[in-house]
Amino acid sequence: MTTDTFDGVAVATKANVYFDGKCVSHGITLADGTKKSVGVILPATLTFNTGAPEIMECVAGSCEYKLAGTSEWKKSAAGEKFAVPGNSSFEIRVSDAYHYICHFG
Amino acid sequence: MTTDTFDGVAVATKANVYFDGKCVSHGITLADGTKKSVGVILPATLTFNTGAPEIMECVAGSCEYKLAGTSEWKKSAAGEKFAVPGNSSFEIRVSDAYHYICHFG
Repeated sequence: MTTDTFDGVAVATKANVYFDGKCVSHGITLADGTKKSVGVILPATLTFNTGAPEIMECVAGSCEYKLAGTSEWKKSAAGEKFAVPGNSSFEIRVSDAYHYICHFG
Repeated sequence: MTTDTFDGVAVATKANVYFDGKCVSHGITLADGTKKSVGVILPATLTFNTGAPEIMECVAGSCEYKLAGTSEWKKSAAGEKFAVPGNSSFEIRVSDAYHYICHFG
């Protein structure tokens, strides 16, 4: 079960572009003030650093990810989530596009 | 004067990825049912075909564009718009990221 849309949100019109465009997201703010982002990672292997803890929810496609301090690559596909601690990092391998919602905090 | 956010909208969580990721957008639906998209075009020269007429509004960065049937490249930067007829096409040259709102109809 994937989240296809967020209703009643404010969306930032300017995209966040990371890694020369391998990751593009738009920030959204829910009615209750909660901030999230919706984005896509294109085929690449990237390392992301976290400030706040994050939950990455896949809405289409898939990825493999490896959290800092672990040695196992795990798969995450549409409808699945994984949690990343704050002030940490994770590697992500994408061979097709990985569409995601990033939940913070 | 640029439009930094759209409030009270539904946003599609899955991105639209065109030209191997040189253009990435998310569809939004306003409270009145109007559909738009917010996206970014990364450095590239691309040709887009239109179905419905479109107005491309730049929210950050800039581009040069050339409408079908014209020979002149024109510049469009943050706060500026250009209109593309329906069932037509335009070329766009981007040397930095071009962030846009696409208004349909």
